[in-house]
Amino acid sequence: MSLDRASLINALKNAATQLRIDSIKSTSEAASGHPTSCCSAADLVAALFFAEMRFDPKNPRNPDSDRFILSKGHAAPVLYAAWAEAGAFDRSELLKLRRIDSDLEGHPTPRLPFVDVATGSLGQGICAAVGCALNARRIASDYRTYVLLGDGESTEGSVWEAADAATTARLDNLCGITDVNALGQSGPTMWRHDMDQFARRWRAFGWHAIVIDGHDLAAILDAYAEARQTKGQPTMILARTIKGKGVSFVEGKDGWHGKAFKKGEELDRALAELAAQFVPSAADVNLAQQIAKPTAKPRAAVSPKPIAPPAYKPGEQVATREAYGVAIAKLGEADPRVVALDADVKNSTFSDKFEKAVPDRFFEAFIAEQVMIGASMGLAARGAIPFPSTFACFLSRAYDFIRMAAISQVGIKMAGSHAGVSIGEDGPSQMALEDLAMCRAEPNITVLYPCDGVSTERLVALAAYHPGPAYIRTSRPKTAVIYPNEEAFTVGGSKVLRESANDAATVVGAGVTVFEALKAYDQLKATGTTIRVIDLYSVAPVDRDTLIRAGLATGGRLITVEDHYVDGGIGDAVAAAVAEAGFTVHRLAVREIPRSGKPEELLDRYGISAAHIAEAVRTVTNAKPLVASR
Amino acid sequence: MSLDRASLINALKNAATQLRIDSIKSTSEAASGHPTSCCSAADLVAALFFAEMRFDPKNPRNPDSDRFILSKGHAAPVLYAAWAEAGAFDRSELLKLRRIDSDLEGHPTPRLPFVDVATGSLGQGICAAVGCALNARRIASDYRTYVLLGDGESTEGSVWEAADAATTARLDNLCGITDVNALGQSGPTMWRHDMDQFARRWRAFGWHAIVIDGHDLAAILDAYAEARQTKGQPTMILARTIKGKGVSFVEGKDGWHGKAFKKGEELDRALAELAAQFVPSAADVNLAQQIAKPTAKPRAAVSPKPIAPPAYKPGEQVATREAYGVAIAKLGEADPRVVALDADVKNSTFSDKFEKAVPDRFFEAFIAEQVMIGASMGLAARGAIPFPSTFACFLSRAYDFIRMAAISQVGIKMAGSHAGVSIGEDGPSQMALEDLAMCRAEPNITVLYPCDGVSTERLVALAAYHPGPAYIRTSRPKTAVIYPNEEAFTVGGSKVLRESANDAATVVGAGVTVFEALKAYDQLKATGTTIRVIDLYSVAPVDRDTLIRAGLATGGRLITVEDHYVDGGIGDAVAAAVAEAGFTVHRLAVREIPRSGKPEELLDRYGISAAHIAEAVRTVTNAKPLVASR
Repeated sequence: MSLDRASLINALKNAATQLRIDSIKSTSEAASGHPTSCCSAADLVAALFFAEMRFDPKNPRNPDSDRFILSKGHAAPVLYAAWAEAGAFDRSELLKLRRIDSDLEGHPTPRLPFVDVATGSLGQGICAAVGCALNARRIASDYRTYVLLGDGESTEGSVWEAADAATTARLDNLCGITDVNALGQSGPTMWRHDMDQFARRWRAFGWHAIVIDGHDLAAILDAYAEARQTKGQPTMILARTIKGKGVSFVEGKDGWHGKAFKKGEELDRALAELAAQFVPSAADVNLAQQIAKPTAKPRAAVSPKPIAPPAYKPGEQVATREAYGVAIAKLGEADPRVVALDADVKNSTFSDKFEKAVPDRFFEAFIAEQVMIGASMGLAARGAIPFPSTFACFLSRAYDFIRMAAISQVGIKMAGSHAGVSIGEDGPSQMALEDLAMCRAEPNITVLYPCDGVSTERLVALAAYHPGPAYIRTSRPKTAVIYPNEEAFTVGGSKVLRESANDAATVVGAGVTVFEALKAYDQLKATGTTIRVIDLYSVAPVDRDTLIRAGLATGGRLITVEDHYVDGGIGDAVAAAVAEAGFTVHRLAVREIPRSGKPEELLDRYGISAAHIAEAVRTVTNAKPLVASR
Repeated sequence: MSLDRASLINALKNAATQLRIDSIKSTSEAASGHPTSCCSAADLVAALFFAEMRFDPKNPRNPDSDRFILSKGHAAPVLYAAWAEAGAFDRSELLKLRRIDSDLEGHPTPRLPFVDVATGSLGQGICAAVGCALNARRIASDYRTYVLLGDGESTEGSVWEAADAATTARLDNLCGITDVNALGQSGPTMWRHDMDQFARRWRAFGWHAIVIDGHDLAAILDAYAEARQTKGQPTMILARTIKGKGVSFVEGKDGWHGKAFKKGEELDRALAELAAQFVPSAADVNLAQQIAKPTAKPRAAVSPKPIAPPAYKPGEQVATREAYGVAIAKLGEADPRVVALDADVKNSTFSDKFEKAVPDRFFEAFIAEQVMIGASMGLAARGAIPFPSTFACFLSRAYDFIRMAAISQVGIKMAGSHAGVSIGEDGPSQMALEDLAMCRAEPNITVLYPCDGVSTERLVALAAYHPGPAYIRTSRPKTAVIYPNEEAFTVGGSKVLRESANDAATVVGAGVTVFEALKAYDQLKATGTTIRVIDLYSVAPVDRDTLIRAGLATGGRLITVEDHYVDGGIGDAVAAAVAEAGFTVHRLAVREIPRSGKPEELLDRYGISAAHIAEAVRTVTNAKPLVASR
């Protein structure tokens, strides 16, 4: 049964009214939430779900389904209402909104099968949508990606990073919709209802922009069709709307953001007004049955090719950042899910090796770290294994995205090069000294930190296939290959590089400081002292058992040494791991803002060179042992 | 002596040639750096320093001096060469570039008196410039702010946040210059030499855009004059340039980014080519003498009015976020240096109380956290005391700016509200659970975390006048006032709230967990056990002495409880502080991605409620004491 246009529009009006009613009811039941932000978007959402998108409400993860990302995540109730209306679950569930026993959270998270990435931090959804759209190209699918933004979030810089990225990639399978309701949380938005402010920005950034009345369903349907037919560029539909549309006493009124209608008279009045808006003639139309299903494409299961082991010579000098490039290129050649993203430093991070090997799965984000990470989130949510990389310090530019990737539990595999003071002369702005703290803080990010070419290649492969987000930290200086090519590594493992029955202390390093520890070992050995040396290549999770064993064997004397600030890095990771054993940890780390200089000068000046390690060993062995009485 | 225009242009040509020579010589001496990025900008910089800006080379901090921010920080050598040419220091210093014994670092830092904020993380300088320009308005100065951007960095979202902020504030005292040399680090930039791509973006964002040939000194001078005369909007000069300009064998060539000329034939050839470009007729002109000095304005010393003590009643229920609003409003009324910035959540962070009290020193950044923090950096560098605030989780959006603020050692006073799971139903996207880790990681950020109205007001005032950056963490729920209004607090202090001679353990909380600890105290006391309770309101620096004293008095049994993820927060801060005493720390913290729910449900579910504290006390007291043998 196909509806004529007038009947369709009436049925969509009713669907929109139902979405408003459900958004209001659920937020009133929860006694919190953003009903007026749902009401402005209800017509746009109704038309999209019930007359434009191709999807299967019972199988939202279908790889060829059109995607919908709610960038204005606080309008979650209208999203939930739309999926209920589509038949994904029973409408009664909506009244559990925001309860601890329901996955219908205050803002959407991928605990729900129809949510690709968590939203609620504004300006991120459109970056993820770029990733979803890029993924369609990767898997040769005709699915389209839709993203609904608020007008308020359009001032986030990340939105314009996404705008550039989508234009550069000519993503005509991407359609944005901006719900211009003119009211932010705390007052009018920057541009209120001046639609030209929006249109000229999006056009300047290369998008096809369509300005419409966001409550005119005919105009909305036409805009979606126009977007679908636009080739070579993405489309942004700029919809002028009224916040709180449908409820007369809140329409366009400030002071109603994030406020549920009070149960009783206030709620009843709102619901009565909405009930009166149903078009009786369309009452019997079942729009859920009208939803177009995605193209049924047979898809072969992905079977990655075997990857050759590393091919380094013992003692060969190779920077881990360069080994990273070799590693992802090999992975990319073996597995069609692997993609790499860059922010104009590919010749420093060596992701250009991937570009040469697999050019069609390499995405240049230019200098725009937020969309690089955001697009990776969208790609990962759709089955890709993305490796975004830049200087480790510049990943801090995207920390809010990394935070949301953790909440989303998506498998982005970040790599940061040029860690620490060992980069030398470029100075503190280029040194990552808080990246371990930043990634360790998130409870589900795997943090790996190789010291040589072999461990880099092995850890990159581990990161690729370990579930969830991961961070790989690489270094600028060349270091000697110390592991045989066949050496095995595990997430949560470590390597004991030096040990004897009479070690005076345990020194735990990672990356460049492994070599400082080995130098300190040699220096101390010459004076008759041996130490245990551990390469803590897995910083999160950490190898608690090995650390405790080493602590017990070395009088509880544990020394950590890291090219990182003292708080939140390897020292804290080790201290937390051995806390129960009653050991305390002596930490060598950077404790002040560093400056430019030669790498070896800086390692020494900031207290993390071999000389400082040897000195620390002498200090802790002269002190009374710190092993707890047990 | 005033030069005629032709003579001025010839003299500027010579100055630009000298800047190129100095940039090349200094980088070759350092054997690293970005000479070709200096060469493209040399004419723009020469005209700005020697024919446009009003400043005193011997007193760069003069409050009425025009400001110059090098957003493309990797062109540092041309900045240093310009200041040397202006007479700020001897040219021979330039050859110490990037050495550990010189402040002429690889990228500019405020260790140099003529640098306001550290640059080198692209897209930040223009945000700081917005702050400098806002500050001119605050102190009623006619100084102008100039900022030089690279074309590559124009894809950073933060640039467009700055663009909007400057337009909204109608900053006609701000002039940007984009050095469009068409080459990024790893290849051509997004828009290469397509000047219209730049012009239409800047115009769409409300700027007066002027497109020029960046090597045509007459055009450059005219553009600066046009910018100076443009009223009501900021100006962006878009200068088409050649990377490596002046040295034929590198001009416009890819592969020369961040590469010094090799000493010997390569360097000699470059220098010989440049030497031949001097205009002999202008050889004797001393442009440094031509520099216009800033307006000499008598300025009274700032004398803040006394601030009334807090005015809370014991037991009164007030959220610390609301107390924050009261506190900054009082500060703002007392001290003309205090400004506040918001990102459209002023009615949740309560910075709207400041707006009401001191509207002309309140800046609405709308939803754009990067420019909010970046502008704060510029304001702080020029003598203001800025309080930027938003939800604590969204400060992660600006982490790279916070990192650079730490490097810059500027006194921005950040406040983040809605910390932790105690926000409740809005869910994980709105909960800050890594903000303490993020700020603690930087070695010079003071981190304060009040639990009641009185401590909030006292800590806000401490933060305002404590040197360097600070972070104040506030909470959403209302909590009881527990401190008398006259109570004194210190940076690095703590409060022992409960103690007796026989305490079974020490419980360290902060913010909302102080109240959970006090509840646990009551519960345990009813069963005959007493505990010591500490309010660790200063998270960085931390009150080591009190913690060690408490540990020694309670059998080494220390329990931390925090509304934050387990890594990098209060547990780690306490553990590091007491490490030398041989204590270990039992940590109660959020250990997984949380979800929506009621605040009290979430505190309990994630293990940081009074019940969990009481249970932890029982566990540690039943275990053998963990005090180290000494």
